[in-house]
Amino acid sequence: MKDTFNMRNIVISFLVLTLNIALALGQVPKPNKAQLAWQHAELGLIFHYDLHVFDGEKYSQQENRIAPVHDIHIFQPTNLDVEQWVITAKESGARYAMITATHETGFALYPSKVNPYNTRALGWGNGKEDLVGDFIKACRKHGILPGVYLGIRWNSFLGIHDFKAIGSGQQQQYRQDYYRKMAEGMVKEICTWYGPLFKIWFDGGAGDPKKGAPDVLPIVKKYQPDCLFYHNDELAEARWGGSESGMVPYPCWSTFPYHYTGTGTAAPEGVYADDYALLKSGDPDGKYFMPAMADAPLRGDNNRHEWFWEPDDEDAVYPVEHLLDMYIKSVGRNATLCIGVTPDTSGLVPELDRSRLREFKSEVDRLFSSPLKDSSEEVEVISFDSKRSVSHISLSEDLTNGQLIRGFHIEALVDGQWVRVTSGSSMGNKFFHFFDSPISCTSLKIVINKSINSPRIISFLAYDTTR
Amino acid sequence: MKDTFNMRNIVISFLVLTLNIALALGQVPKPNKAQLAWQHAELGLIFHYDLHVFDGEKYSQQENRIAPVHDIHIFQPTNLDVEQWVITAKESGARYAMITATHETGFALYPSKVNPYNTRALGWGNGKEDLVGDFIKACRKHGILPGVYLGIRWNSFLGIHDFKAIGSGQQQQYRQDYYRKMAEGMVKEICTWYGPLFKIWFDGGAGDPKKGAPDVLPIVKKYQPDCLFYHNDELAEARWGGSESGMVPYPCWSTFPYHYTGTGTAAPEGVYADDYALLKSGDPDGKYFMPAMADAPLRGDNNRHEWFWEPDDEDAVYPVEHLLDMYIKSVGRNATLCIGVTPDTSGLVPELDRSRLREFKSEVDRLFSSPLKDSSEEVEVISFDSKRSVSHISLSEDLTNGQLIRGFHIEALVDGQWVRVTSGSSMGNKFFHFFDSPISCTSLKIVINKSINSPRIISFLAYDTTR
Repeated sequence: MKDTFNMRNIVISFLVLTLNIALALGQVPKPNKAQLAWQHAELGLIFHYDLHVFDGEKYSQQENRIAPVHDIHIFQPTNLDVEQWVITAKESGARYAMITATHETGFALYPSKVNPYNTRALGWGNGKEDLVGDFIKACRKHGILPGVYLGIRWNSFLGIHDFKAIGSGQQQQYRQDYYRKMAEGMVKEICTWYGPLFKIWFDGGAGDPKKGAPDVLPIVKKYQPDCLFYHNDELAEARWGGSESGMVPYPCWSTFPYHYTGTGTAAPEGVYADDYALLKSGDPDGKYFMPAMADAPLRGDNNRHEWFWEPDDEDAVYPVEHLLDMYIKSVGRNATLCIGVTPDTSGLVPELDRSRLREFKSEVDRLFSSPLKDSSEEVEVISFDSKRSVSHISLSEDLTNGQLIRGFHIEALVDGQWVRVTSGSSMGNKFFHFFDSPISCTSLKIVINKSINSPRIISFLAYDTTR
Repeated sequence: MKDTFNMRNIVISFLVLTLNIALALGQVPKPNKAQLAWQHAELGLIFHYDLHVFDGEKYSQQENRIAPVHDIHIFQPTNLDVEQWVITAKESGARYAMITATHETGFALYPSKVNPYNTRALGWGNGKEDLVGDFIKACRKHGILPGVYLGIRWNSFLGIHDFKAIGSGQQQQYRQDYYRKMAEGMVKEICTWYGPLFKIWFDGGAGDPKKGAPDVLPIVKKYQPDCLFYHNDELAEARWGGSESGMVPYPCWSTFPYHYTGTGTAAPEGVYADDYALLKSGDPDGKYFMPAMADAPLRGDNNRHEWFWEPDDEDAVYPVEHLLDMYIKSVGRNATLCIGVTPDTSGLVPELDRSRLREFKSEVDRLFSSPLKDSSEEVEVISFDSKRSVSHISLSEDLTNGQLIRGFHIEALVDGQWVRVTSGSSMGNKFFHFFDSPISCTSLKIVINKSINSPRIISFLAYDTTR
């Protein structure tokens, strides 16, 4: 207890000190290793899987988070293969993939020692109980960065409601204490059992330890120093992009005025105002590096919005054109895209969803993998041997020292004249621009109008592919 | 749901109808098969085993029933052998033995499918997870009647407090519903997985299904028609003898004025008044057959009272003389004795406790297994060839048609004169009497002064063994 507490204070003090020294020196906020990896990853899939996938009913989050599932043995995937999930991620062009180790039922998809409500209770005895471990193993095998999503804000089984054990008096306090230690124990298990993780995602945040929520930040920092911590009321190393549309508005800055985003009333002032405007846009003058995540379920079409598999939802799978739109309006706007995919009762990603994601990758590849000219040394200019038609461009700045470019425009050499063809404020990890109609030119160049310190373009590519 | 409900009503209606017909006919209440077996069993052991046996701390019931155990993996008996428990019962002279399938933590000692908080979550994988099943199997092997104790009134893990899920509103209702179905599911598992049971014991009763408690009676009646049901607010087929001293006062009648005893405020008027006087004595005119249980922990000496094993409690093991006193003041007063034995962290009954119980049986055997004359046809009289010294006697009436004898005395033929040497009201299954000093006589006879219908003595034995 005492050791943990001391560790906690040392870690938190160090984090705050580092941030404050940076601020004192007037420095631009820089990403840590995890944040840089997060921006570079660009596209990932998240797989939601929980007991109620098997209940044959439509999912209602409001109900589900407070109503315990009566029979855990409905959880009987007939052909469980989490490697197929990871292969689906690979086929989608995703660089990272996440699995819901627990969601709002509290049921753990791995044989937790601290949370007895887990897959081991199913008594399968077939060696497939550790979905999380198998998933992470498959990720490493297929070169996908593994991440874990852990829901500790709700737990319908134990009666945890927005980080609080329900009830009152001594019994409530004992249960709160039990739950807090259990959640911390799960975080330690996830952080120590499976090797380095890319991201740990606390659903709705992990709350405020000062108000009795599990104290998870020191655990993650101790055991997974290079894992993206997302998030609690003490720290957010990335931020929710303000919608579950898979898109962010332009501009979407990697920086934010607060070091955390909180949840509900625990949020810093203004964070949740104006339809999450600040979460969506970020703040170029923000003192904290906190890039955005644009998340969306694959099954979000036809007024559906399904993070979990449900029967008869095939028409909710977004068409390729919409997925491409998401990609362009998230990755192409300096956010990281996370698409929710729903393994079904067979334990596999449905073939329809999988093939839709394959088609999506084909389109992304068609649009972005055949530039007119490879990115060269002199990266701010692209010169062609002869006049070429350009449909769209992709730009990227080096974020190692922070997001430094604040204003730029693109000029094209058209019939011997440099013509301004587009402009922007935020460039960041990626800036895509599709011209209304293709531009005929012999050269393209980036002109940086406004920046901090010494920005560096690391990629400038032009394409001629009709969308 | 509907089927269960109908089944429930049919069963309850039938029970009530049967009892009422008996009452209308002015009949003496008769035991059913289970109640007769309960009276004949006379002596049993109950084994309490739960997570906190392993916490190295003193047990506090008030705390334990509301404070979840943080780490279930402390439950690691080094040498678990439930057959040794049953052998201990056999060696004690017990005819039945019970195991706590769940106690107040809610942790099930068997791989329940409806309660995921069970031994399977330990992940032993050594085939020893089903303590309940193995215990019952060992009982059958050694000729012991198997019983199961199921605690559903409290559940520190799920936050069940006196049959109620803590909390409020819709979430409380969902949790109450979950818990109720889970408890009913466990009862069904216990009643259907392990063959015929001698007794099912709901700790503190199973509550009132009309007030939201699990509806367990129809399940037990359906699947275990010959199992003693002990008890809920609808029915008690036996009653608590009013103390945990292992003794009842004399007389202790097998009948009771109510068909249930309830718990706390749910009890019929007067049941819990006057230091449980009515539970202790019963009522000779009671319309319901409901014999008493005298229970006590083996580790109850030196002001201790331990149903669970705790470290450094060896001096709490009752001496043989006290155990014998219990036996005489329970079995010898028409009650059934139940001694609580505490397997320790090794998974075995401690050798001290086991040998103490062996010694106890030796004493019981010494006192009661060598009568001066075998019980003969003419059972109400014992005649010796010559004058004999008699230290004590044991009487037994046939309870098949109810407890019929209401007054009797014993006469001895001393120097050619019939002398009254003792008298009693209740005889029941067993009536022991130790004379202050041995009686020298050539004959003994029972004189029944007061009875209903046609009572029948089935055993009348005299002994000459100094206690």
